[in-house]
Amino acid sequence: MDSRLEKQLAFVLEIDKVKNIFRQTHLSQHGRNENDAEHSWHMALMAYLLKEYSNEKIDIAKVMLMCLIHDIVEIDAGDTYAYDSIGLETQKAREDAAKERIFSILPEEQKNELIALFDEFEECETAESKFAHAMDNLQPLLLNNSNNGSDWQGHNVTVDQIYKRHSKTKLGSRKLFEIADSIIQENIKKGNLHE
Amino acid sequence: MDSRLEKQLAFVLEIDKVKNIFRQTHLSQHGRNENDAEHSWHMALMAYLLKEYSNEKIDIAKVMLMCLIHDIVEIDAGDTYAYDSIGLETQKAREDAAKERIFSILPEEQKNELIALFDEFEECETAESKFAHAMDNLQPLLLNNSNNGSDWQGHNVTVDQIYKRHSKTKLGSRKLFEIADSIIQENIKKGNLHE
Repeated sequence: MDSRLEKQLAFVLEIDKVKNIFRQTHLSQHGRNENDAEHSWHMALMAYLLKEYSNEKIDIAKVMLMCLIHDIVEIDAGDTYAYDSIGLETQKAREDAAKERIFSILPEEQKNELIALFDEFEECETAESKFAHAMDNLQPLLLNNSNNGSDWQGHNVTVDQIYKRHSKTKLGSRKLFEIADSIIQENIKKGNLHE
Repeated sequence: MDSRLEKQLAFVLEIDKVKNIFRQTHLSQHGRNENDAEHSWHMALMAYLLKEYSNEKIDIAKVMLMCLIHDIVEIDAGDTYAYDSIGLETQKAREDAAKERIFSILPEEQKNELIALFDEFEECETAESKFAHAMDNLQPLLLNNSNNGSDWQGHNVTVDQIYKRHSKTKLGSRKLFEIADSIIQENIKKGNLHE
């Protein structure tokens, strides 16, 4: 086998590990914890189906690819819960080391391409990355809402925390932020989120 | 909420169930059974990374989307193992009923679009569907090979059966078929596949 293809297949096998990185979010119907591969699959497909709601014109293939790769670094860095303030302090350093090791398995130019795409997602300044972030926030919101807010309850998530997170949803899609907002308001009324 | 968006979000929640459809393939490192969402995520990303090996010029965004949706029908139809000859006889009827119910949750034109894409995948006549099939075959082959062929051993898969399956890999990518072929030959030598 030539060495380029060998590197690509080694990477394909390496990222299988994403399926064992579990998140705090639970599947609908009060299911088990979701893993990063499932979450990324769901986000990528949502992005395609909801693309008409992006605030800005987007290259949807780029958004989908960004969704598919955005959590690969968690193979080494682990999942950092969106409301874990201590974990969030060290997240960038952990993920930077992870992205260097993992994407280096690929041929050089594919490594550079995926790192650039990952960085673009993290910086959240382009139209595509803002819409991908909207998906990253909306996807667990929909699951959690379908489970009567049990993940928020389990982690004592506050109204401030959730609105801070969803400020990025608004950057990607005002329309989808409206939906997120109405879901949040409903869950406040039900006592699933506290002040 | 307007009814178009309501339908789209209902579909997004419905497809969460794909994460509970388990396949015969096991994750690398002798892990648990893989589910359809994980498999689809893996295939879509592989398609992007290996697109240079397609026999024909492809629209990679279309291939990725095809990979992401190709197993949604299994929410109702269940997973049919590639080497289950009895299950394969009823697979089409089960999947046709499933695709009608599930994609009908979407607004009409999105339903039609995804059904057309699913049918295109199944018919395996276009460049995109051939390459998506190559991914659908190569992905479990790589996992199974990494586990020393334990899935083939567990199901007494024969050399004829696996080559029949991989005839579609060749339609999508002669180069990737060469790799599949060398992996199959190695596993025959090891006694993991029998005549």
